[in-house]
Amino acid sequence: MLTLGKQQSTYDFGPDNPPALRVKPGATLVLETLDAVDGQIQSDSDSAEQIDLGHVNSATGPIYVEGAQPGDTLVVEILDNELANQGAALIIPGFGALQDDIPGPYTKVFHVEDGQIRYGDKVRLPLKPMIGTIGVAPLEPLPTLNLGEHGGNLDTTAVTTGATVYLPVFVEGALFGAGDVHSTQGDGEVCGTGIETDAKLTFRLDVRKDFPIQRPRLENADEWMTIGVDESLKEAIRLSLLDMVSWLQDMHGLSREEAYVLISLVGDVRIGQIVDPKASVRTVMPKSVFI
Amino acid sequence: MLTLGKQQSTYDFGPDNPPALRVKPGATLVLETLDAVDGQIQSDSDSAEQIDLGHVNSATGPIYVEGAQPGDTLVVEILDNELANQGAALIIPGFGALQDDIPGPYTKVFHVEDGQIRYGDKVRLPLKPMIGTIGVAPLEPLPTLNLGEHGGNLDTTAVTTGATVYLPVFVEGALFGAGDVHSTQGDGEVCGTGIETDAKLTFRLDVRKDFPIQRPRLENADEWMTIGVDESLKEAIRLSLLDMVSWLQDMHGLSREEAYVLISLVGDVRIGQIVDPKASVRTVMPKSVFI
Repeated sequence: MLTLGKQQSTYDFGPDNPPALRVKPGATLVLETLDAVDGQIQSDSDSAEQIDLGHVNSATGPIYVEGAQPGDTLVVEILDNELANQGAALIIPGFGALQDDIPGPYTKVFHVEDGQIRYGDKVRLPLKPMIGTIGVAPLEPLPTLNLGEHGGNLDTTAVTTGATVYLPVFVEGALFGAGDVHSTQGDGEVCGTGIETDAKLTFRLDVRKDFPIQRPRLENADEWMTIGVDESLKEAIRLSLLDMVSWLQDMHGLSREEAYVLISLVGDVRIGQIVDPKASVRTVMPKSVFI
Repeated sequence: MLTLGKQQSTYDFGPDNPPALRVKPGATLVLETLDAVDGQIQSDSDSAEQIDLGHVNSATGPIYVEGAQPGDTLVVEILDNELANQGAALIIPGFGALQDDIPGPYTKVFHVEDGQIRYGDKVRLPLKPMIGTIGVAPLEPLPTLNLGEHGGNLDTTAVTTGATVYLPVFVEGALFGAGDVHSTQGDGEVCGTGIETDAKLTFRLDVRKDFPIQRPRLENADEWMTIGVDESLKEAIRLSLLDMVSWLQDMHGLSREEAYVLISLVGDVRIGQIVDPKASVRTVMPKSVFI
């Protein structure tokens, strides 16, 4: 199995970053990933205030996918997401949806016991592994903490085993990377983190020439999803809706109005996160309504 | 059974509206409700542009609940929601999340067949009844199309049979009302409507003196929910998060930081709607994580 170790991490998605690995379309590969604070938090006494913000949210990569050209779509099947047994959640001052109300700092290290995450004596959290950061190189370099049409720090709970992520290719070879895995995270990621943990990700990468997209899309067995990213939540919602309208038109021959109304009736607009430099939003359509 | 007919409808929640019915705490009652456009749309050829906007989103009521005083909490158990067999979805110009992109007008009338909603030959929608408008009188009158701390046009899919809605009481008797039922609606209500339909709602109303709240809250068998309402989506999210932090502290003795982090890890921030005069947002916490 092709494997890229976590020492091959990068803090930006950039068009000129030298590939750490080259693969053919259809390749399956394993990426080992660092937790989002590069292991700087190991116990509850490690302060969230002392984190070196120059070493956060790394992605393992970049992977050059042969044959991927600008205008193509990179197809990323998520085959497995093996979590480490320890992770941390943080309230970092100046960060989070309640940063003026509950400013922190606060650190909580979690351990997995019997397949669950223990939080004191009275709370047990199920494991819900997800990949926070997944993307390709945009035309201009962007920190891995940021997000946009190239993907990046989407922090979208649907990016998980069994899902296929579609990313627009902007540069030759796509220059794919992923990291920032969470053992669990809710929609919103409101305090600014999930449980940030090391992980071992297994992907299958492919290239499509017949499916041009402008922004990330997702699919799993039950749903189609389109992702919008913007500083404004409202505009992120608009972008994800417009993509879903187009997709439903292309797949099912609906008019724009029919697609729009159908989304209003059975589609859900869900929040990825509202705490990173831009918000991420997804429109979720159930496949089951089409007979 | 106490029943209030749909001719007892009102277009505002106001402190001085004369009660249509008086009930004792613990009473069960039936409210017949008009669809959100007062039956103005009966076929696909009835234009969404010709709707009299002075006759939209009525609520049946108001109900005076004996003993309810300002500062109390009205407890509304939703026992049943019987839908009519016909309803309409609309794109009304100047309204909706894509109003600049897909302006309408567009009208689609739906019929229930074999317990499903038919949308052309290729689409079948399951029935997902929900109550769009539910509230009490605020201190100043507000149109039923609007929303706020008193509830109102929340358009929140979780307001459905099996849920208990908690509303803060602002005036003596609470002056409860409900209407604007949807046969189905997705989170966001993006085109501006669900399937708007007549309905027959069964509620049990009670009053709590020991559970003061500032904004609507909900509960069902699996989840606690707090609702935030504001012109700004971000502020609506903040309000709903602050209420959930308080509620988790009160119920489970968590610190503010513990509650905030727990919401980030397993709570979901979900959108009610983004198309009414103010946005509605709910924070959803699964009960199952507490052992």
